[in-house]
Amino acid sequence: MKIVKVGMIGFGTIGAGVAKILTDNDGIISKRLGARVELVKVADLDITTDRGVELGADVLTTSVDDVINHPDIEVLIELIGGYDPAKKFLLQAIDHGKHIVTANKALLAKYGEEIFSAVSEKGLSIGFEASIGGAIPIIRSVREAFVANHIKSIEGIVNGTANYILSKMSDENCDFNTALKEAQEKGFAEADPTFDIQGIDSAHKIAVMTRLAYGTPVTFDDITVTGISGITSEDIECAREFGYRIKLLAISKCDGHAIDIRVHPAMIPIAHPMANVNGSLNAIRVCDDMMEENILIGHGAGSLPTGSAVVGDVVEISRNILTNVGERLPAGSFLEKEVKRIPLKDISEVESEYFLRFSVQDKPGVLSKISGILGKYSISIESMIQRGRGKGSEGVPLVMMCHKSSEKNIQSALNEIEELNVVCEKPNLIRVER
Amino acid sequence: MKIVKVGMIGFGTIGAGVAKILTDNDGIISKRLGARVELVKVADLDITTDRGVELGADVLTTSVDDVINHPDIEVLIELIGGYDPAKKFLLQAIDHGKHIVTANKALLAKYGEEIFSAVSEKGLSIGFEASIGGAIPIIRSVREAFVANHIKSIEGIVNGTANYILSKMSDENCDFNTALKEAQEKGFAEADPTFDIQGIDSAHKIAVMTRLAYGTPVTFDDITVTGISGITSEDIECAREFGYRIKLLAISKCDGHAIDIRVHPAMIPIAHPMANVNGSLNAIRVCDDMMEENILIGHGAGSLPTGSAVVGDVVEISRNILTNVGERLPAGSFLEKEVKRIPLKDISEVESEYFLRFSVQDKPGVLSKISGILGKYSISIESMIQRGRGKGSEGVPLVMMCHKSSEKNIQSALNEIEELNVVCEKPNLIRVER
Repeated sequence: MKIVKVGMIGFGTIGAGVAKILTDNDGIISKRLGARVELVKVADLDITTDRGVELGADVLTTSVDDVINHPDIEVLIELIGGYDPAKKFLLQAIDHGKHIVTANKALLAKYGEEIFSAVSEKGLSIGFEASIGGAIPIIRSVREAFVANHIKSIEGIVNGTANYILSKMSDENCDFNTALKEAQEKGFAEADPTFDIQGIDSAHKIAVMTRLAYGTPVTFDDITVTGISGITSEDIECAREFGYRIKLLAISKCDGHAIDIRVHPAMIPIAHPMANVNGSLNAIRVCDDMMEENILIGHGAGSLPTGSAVVGDVVEISRNILTNVGERLPAGSFLEKEVKRIPLKDISEVESEYFLRFSVQDKPGVLSKISGILGKYSISIESMIQRGRGKGSEGVPLVMMCHKSSEKNIQSALNEIEELNVVCEKPNLIRVER
Repeated sequence: MKIVKVGMIGFGTIGAGVAKILTDNDGIISKRLGARVELVKVADLDITTDRGVELGADVLTTSVDDVINHPDIEVLIELIGGYDPAKKFLLQAIDHGKHIVTANKALLAKYGEEIFSAVSEKGLSIGFEASIGGAIPIIRSVREAFVANHIKSIEGIVNGTANYILSKMSDENCDFNTALKEAQEKGFAEADPTFDIQGIDSAHKIAVMTRLAYGTPVTFDDITVTGISGITSEDIECAREFGYRIKLLAISKCDGHAIDIRVHPAMIPIAHPMANVNGSLNAIRVCDDMMEENILIGHGAGSLPTGSAVVGDVVEISRNILTNVGERLPAGSFLEKEVKRIPLKDISEVESEYFLRFSVQDKPGVLSKISGILGKYSISIESMIQRGRGKGSEGVPLVMMCHKSSEKNIQSALNEIEELNVVCEKPNLIRVER
């Protein structure tokens, strides 16, 4: 039986998952591929910690060169993450003619064009299914299943940590800090959770998906990003009363002329399948001109789910190797010469329905002042809840759902409302996505 | 630019969708494939009805031979459905060296092994993404994304007509016949809806998915099938009270030794994402040893969604053609020599929680008699609702949810309960799936 030799740099959580799958499930891989996939070299700075997987005697090394320069390795798996030195290693491996599998969304969001070009110039393949949504086959679906369709939007719950925290807040009526602390204790959030809770990780992922969906490069810095640390248990409770759940959404919409791309907490109607995607699960919804919509739900992180996506890519590239195919499909889903820069829509042009939460003084005339300013900017109120005074809060909460209006109008109105002396705190806004 | 020439037999609803996508979206296909896909011949008995798509002068023909014998056609799309003459045409086309794309689940459920063998012998490719779940990329996911994993179960709402009817009954509190009539008027159900409402179409689909998931051929006739025509609005209402929705599920589970495969209405907890997959949407859930679970939701039928899956397969096979690859992956997901017959579990061995509905005489002692028999078979009641007398009904409804027990025990108990003279009708049973 033929053997495809594979090398890996980075032997952390995902790396251990990949090694376990390649070892434990080598039987089923052979039955479906018609060849064996052998992990011949694994490089990591730490090669002494027990990862619970048995590797052959000479497999582990502390030298990345042992992997990149290995003459028999045809596929290189990069799992060290971050920009540097991951980028340098990848480009070296590509230069040595090795096909690439990576889970590195940060790298692809920032240096995707350079890496895709290098891969294409050498006539190689790159797989990065594991970079978004863990085991969810979203890259495969966008690059291959919906290949003939004009994608109109991709929206997703793509960060398991943020979703775990929001689900916890919702299910147990606890505040953000309590939920975060528990997520850290249970290993669902890192010691420094900034990337996850501030929406940066989600922005990396939506940048990569945007490139695949519309064939346009996106500069990560251009994405409007709001994280979840401003969400209060009051917001969650009011959302429930209005019939919604709050999720951190990464959104990318294209009307053919401009792209609306942003990451922020959003209200989703409770009956929508994505509203019930809880805990560390992820969900991604793709809409296009032909198949209408597809929603894919699965585990967005974790050793084995993410490892499963890595190994799926390795097997796919092995099929190329076994049939003497170099580059089977464009890395970024469009031929390089067809990649065109589509302008980004400014957030002020975006239209949405809004949930607004004000903290106001408990006296007559307040609602009239606020609704007067909203009316001036053509924002009409759909429904409203006036709640009792919260613990330790100066004002009482006033929350409302507003019909569709432009971001520009809502921001102008909120700025004016914030100046009212009956308003105690900066108003909070959450967009509604149906 | 290179051209891949394609022929199609069957120019009905899906065929028109395929022609429209290949025509309207030829630009994006070229940008992503690097070649044009040209529909050169389309055969149908009726070539006069306007399908809303403009084809070239000599494209339409009434002769299937014009397509199958066409020297330039490399990919044949079969969309006539049914067993005969579809099977004959497919085998002829394979014999002529043409790659195959089909949406014919009935054919694959019955003659899959023969067709897969013929394709493999000739070193060709076959795509059948459109045969299950319309635009949902389930075949691709099972054959490629989860390739390294031992699949444990596939469960799905895979019939849009049945789901439309059940959703309608649930949303509008109407009975089965009213919902069916409306589905027919709106084009969601055929004049003869037997295949859809009796679960036969779902059984075809779960047979095909079982083959792909576990590498075992399944005889369609071995599947236990119950349709939805026995579901009453009473059932739907009680389900809601207990916190469930009723869906027609196709289920296939494998513990490594035996396969539990069946189609029947099932209770799904209301908070599960699949409980909120309504109308003509489909949903398929795959569980395995590595990625845990994936749920894919999308339109399971319709001209363009199903057409989109067909064209996705055509583009995939075109990539093979452009890189001189014949057979890229095993048609049935496992190498032919690795296909092994796994025994089917008898339905009597299956364990489940149950919803039971009895129609009983409104007098004391009835519950004691029924619960006595259930107790004798070690079936314990979790909760119970006794409802008022229905219109025109002799008895009053008594419904209950029971803890897990074996199918054998529940059937024995129901047989005994049916014999009680206080029981007015045959008891109804709905299995619970979590």
